[in-house]
Amino acid sequence: MNKRPLILIANDDGYHAGGIRALIEAARPCGDLLVVAPIEGQSGMSHAITVKVPLRVEKYAEEPGFTLYVCNGTPVDCVKIALNRLVDRHPDLLLTGINHGANSSASVLYSGTMAAAMEGCMYHIPAIGFSLLDHSPEADFDPCVGHVKALIESVLENGLCSGTCLNVNIPKIPAGDIRGIRVCRQARGYWIEEFEHRIDPNNREYYWLTGDFFNEEPDAVDTDEWALKHGYVSIVPVQIDMTCYKSMDKLKKMLE
Amino acid sequence: MNKRPLILIANDDGYHAGGIRALIEAARPCGDLLVVAPIEGQSGMSHAITVKVPLRVEKYAEEPGFTLYVCNGTPVDCVKIALNRLVDRHPDLLLTGINHGANSSASVLYSGTMAAAMEGCMYHIPAIGFSLLDHSPEADFDPCVGHVKALIESVLENGLCSGTCLNVNIPKIPAGDIRGIRVCRQARGYWIEEFEHRIDPNNREYYWLTGDFFNEEPDAVDTDEWALKHGYVSIVPVQIDMTCYKSMDKLKKMLE
Repeated sequence: MNKRPLILIANDDGYHAGGIRALIEAARPCGDLLVVAPIEGQSGMSHAITVKVPLRVEKYAEEPGFTLYVCNGTPVDCVKIALNRLVDRHPDLLLTGINHGANSSASVLYSGTMAAAMEGCMYHIPAIGFSLLDHSPEADFDPCVGHVKALIESVLENGLCSGTCLNVNIPKIPAGDIRGIRVCRQARGYWIEEFEHRIDPNNREYYWLTGDFFNEEPDAVDTDEWALKHGYVSIVPVQIDMTCYKSMDKLKKMLE
Repeated sequence: MNKRPLILIANDDGYHAGGIRALIEAARPCGDLLVVAPIEGQSGMSHAITVKVPLRVEKYAEEPGFTLYVCNGTPVDCVKIALNRLVDRHPDLLLTGINHGANSSASVLYSGTMAAAMEGCMYHIPAIGFSLLDHSPEADFDPCVGHVKALIESVLENGLCSGTCLNVNIPKIPAGDIRGIRVCRQARGYWIEEFEHRIDPNNREYYWLTGDFFNEEPDAVDTDEWALKHGYVSIVPVQIDMTCYKSMDKLKKMLE
């Protein structure tokens, strides 16, 4: 008994990414770490699970208080196989990220980082997904580590509401310029997409998805987008119950 | 002017599936149809988007009031490329499915069918995702068509709240045994997974994901699971704002 907390860690950029290394560094003093990460980058995989090909998982590193597995699946597969096959007790906390790039506003729906966190809260594990607003593989995560560690300690101590996890986004500015932490709601917005049209050497058409985020409410001070733009770390509590309760009555009347 | 409604249709089981053919049949009298469906089954892809390989899209069939494209991407890719490259006007309605298998309760998070519907409501298109509780490729969709058509007509006439789409699940029982339609909330539950462990011919381990759904609140009469179990069509209004508003105050205090 009296064991150190068990902290499960996953991400979507793969086990080699700088973001997960920074997260491991921040979490290491707080508990025993079980890291299960994709072998390759899995950006934009959302809550996808692998059903067509077999899953493989392999132990890559082990030392006291730290074990790393890699998996050929999605971020959610990593969490599932960890919970089902690799843990020796119910984890006290699930951490995902630190993602290379924002997962604020509507991006929460596309994000493998956040889906992996949501998967944890489905199984009643307090969970936090972290993202830095820097897509670069060489992104500097040093300014994040203090905030990440403080949040880990706070959630280990206080827990989270059942069915809820945290979506934490960190602006790409020097640590000293971060103005603080704001609890926010998810901003309304979407991606204005451009499918870049090309012709392959066999004269067949193909497309690459590109796009820019459009914030539908840039002046709403209670949103994650506003907080990030103004130098704050944004924290949105995210729930896995997707029911729109306030439209239920209207819907009932419509279907009468 | 005075055009017929433009109805965009996508699914996750692929263009050849019986479910999408039933949906096309039900929707055909209600408007001009643009169908963009995956070339292969894409079950469990959730809100995944394709970023690592080029997207291809090809016209497979065209007649007055009906066009079918197939795409090598995910259900959400199908919606994105339709909106960006294939529509001649803003669609009046987006329909997805009819999925072979349930998308009730927590399955909404894994579902490509429902993600494609959510993608529509992100772009302010009223959207409905349909699922039949029968995984079989030979599932009989005839009992669904009447309910599906009635819902299409109702949503075309009345619209839906912005940022909200409908998750419609239909029990696998004869049409005459369906007791009616119930507006529900998403039941709390999760999948109890088993990763089946095997050894390949090269003596390497692999796993297949299998599992059974566990309903955490089987007696809650306002849930989709209860409705389906008791012979009703369940309709859950699903929102793309995932913020847990009721935990914001607690979180603010915790982080003070």
